[in-house]
Amino acid sequence: MISPAKPMFDKIALIGIGLIGSSLARVIRREGLAGHVSISTRSQTTLRRAEELGLGDSYTADPSMAVADADLVIVSVPVGSSGEVAAEIAPGLKRGAIVTDVGSTKRSVIAQMAPYIPDGVHFIPGHPLAGTEKSGPDAGFASLFENRWCIFTPLPGTDPAALEKLSAFWRACGSYTDVMDADHHDRVLAIVSHLPHIIAYNIVGTASDLEEVSEGEVIKYAASGFRDFTRLAASDPTMWRDVCLHNKDAILEMLARFSEDLAYLQKAIRWGDGDKLFDLFTRTRAVRRSIIEAGQEVDAPDFGRQVVAHPQTQ
Amino acid sequence: MISPAKPMFDKIALIGIGLIGSSLARVIRREGLAGHVSISTRSQTTLRRAEELGLGDSYTADPSMAVADADLVIVSVPVGSSGEVAAEIAPGLKRGAIVTDVGSTKRSVIAQMAPYIPDGVHFIPGHPLAGTEKSGPDAGFASLFENRWCIFTPLPGTDPAALEKLSAFWRACGSYTDVMDADHHDRVLAIVSHLPHIIAYNIVGTASDLEEVSEGEVIKYAASGFRDFTRLAASDPTMWRDVCLHNKDAILEMLARFSEDLAYLQKAIRWGDGDKLFDLFTRTRAVRRSIIEAGQEVDAPDFGRQVVAHPQTQ
Repeated sequence: MISPAKPMFDKIALIGIGLIGSSLARVIRREGLAGHVSISTRSQTTLRRAEELGLGDSYTADPSMAVADADLVIVSVPVGSSGEVAAEIAPGLKRGAIVTDVGSTKRSVIAQMAPYIPDGVHFIPGHPLAGTEKSGPDAGFASLFENRWCIFTPLPGTDPAALEKLSAFWRACGSYTDVMDADHHDRVLAIVSHLPHIIAYNIVGTASDLEEVSEGEVIKYAASGFRDFTRLAASDPTMWRDVCLHNKDAILEMLARFSEDLAYLQKAIRWGDGDKLFDLFTRTRAVRRSIIEAGQEVDAPDFGRQVVAHPQTQ
Repeated sequence: MISPAKPMFDKIALIGIGLIGSSLARVIRREGLAGHVSISTRSQTTLRRAEELGLGDSYTADPSMAVADADLVIVSVPVGSSGEVAAEIAPGLKRGAIVTDVGSTKRSVIAQMAPYIPDGVHFIPGHPLAGTEKSGPDAGFASLFENRWCIFTPLPGTDPAALEKLSAFWRACGSYTDVMDADHHDRVLAIVSHLPHIIAYNIVGTASDLEEVSEGEVIKYAASGFRDFTRLAASDPTMWRDVCLHNKDAILEMLARFSEDLAYLQKAIRWGDGDKLFDLFTRTRAVRRSIIEAGQEVDAPDFGRQVVAHPQTQ
């Protein structure tokens, strides 16, 4: 069979094959973006599963072998492992290759990885704003990145051609692309992603620890609001531990602001200040409308949820 | 045309015709639960809209007229208006009628309504744990109550037959029913519903007020977590102002617990205590699994969201 066009990259190496890595593998295959996809991950079990799923063309537990001759290397591991992975792949990297990552914190990833990247290799940190609460190679799907943003935080002196090539790759995966400073990225993500996850984890923890309301009651009546938070709070614990440890300053700042605002709201509740409450509750409505208009949220009530009752409920 | 069976109630009066009232109207019609549905609401615009939608059989701005001869009266108004509505309908209530409500706080509703309910009328406070972020008579739909719990908080001396009849009505609407003490209801709802809404309103407020991250950025990148909160934060402001004012004690207690837990989490982030973070982030995962198993949450990644990109996005 003759391929209709030369793929964008002769060889892509995927280091890490969880939700993000395996979604990349699937969309690369679907769109024909690579002549060869090599996959490497630390866990033998995960590597075997990736092979069973047929996600790539070659599989190895040795990341330096996976990146040999690769034109594009995508590191999709918890951000706390970035430095170690960079050290492992460094000896195998081809001159002229592009190395990128998908981590949710960029200042720390740059500090961890950049020292290991050899001269002549293009290191371009990246972050696709995509994911679900599921993890692992079975959780990935080819359309994960469609209609979502991928942000690059290139270092000074980055080759524009390499950046454009990486951007074209992500656009081929269905994403919009953006460029920003790593520090700004980390503050933006602290508010739009990290704080929401931390708050969600926290409220689910609070609800589980009550002595006067049983966990059974919390679960039974969760549909009245609580369940929305459990989705984010079901996200991968290793990934989110690492995010908290590696974007500490920005997260602590956003947490402080959140707590200030909550104290203000709490005071309004304590003193029965209905006008203050009504004012806040009114202006937040417009934000959702804007997100829907920006094509980043569904316009159906209740997220368009279709809950099917299980037989054991009644 | 001969009706196949006598309806459960000859006449049902719906006082308030927003999301809940209009959903009731629709399911009552679909299931043939009433011979006649009378609708009353304060706003002339809403009343006219209810009539245009054909939600009932008669329409009046005078609630005491709406309840005349009604066997079942369902008050679906913001909890802060409960007392006023009770005073208005009291003169029209038929002996033997059941009066119920749908309010999210029960102690306050009982305090407001009970004094006005005449002897011989069964007042049974109720709370269907159902809703979406939309409001108004157009937002209702007949399946809103399916697979959801309706909690009754009957007063001492409530007629068991009346309670059973009301329970049968809600089961006919598709709900499961439960009975609990009003104080306990208010504490359970404070954690499963009120706190989640307040936290959601608060975080959306915090994100809107940042000076270094623009509102445009918050909206553009909302899909990385933030957007989940905007759904609850788009709920009806009047309803939620009233909930905060009328379940103050339980809400303040849950807020205090939440803030304590958040301080603990914040300290773990500040001191880089990855084990504490990992521990919390792991145990919260199980809660979602239980909610899905209880048939109260969808088992699809990302709530099964289907976001359609709008042309202006690119």
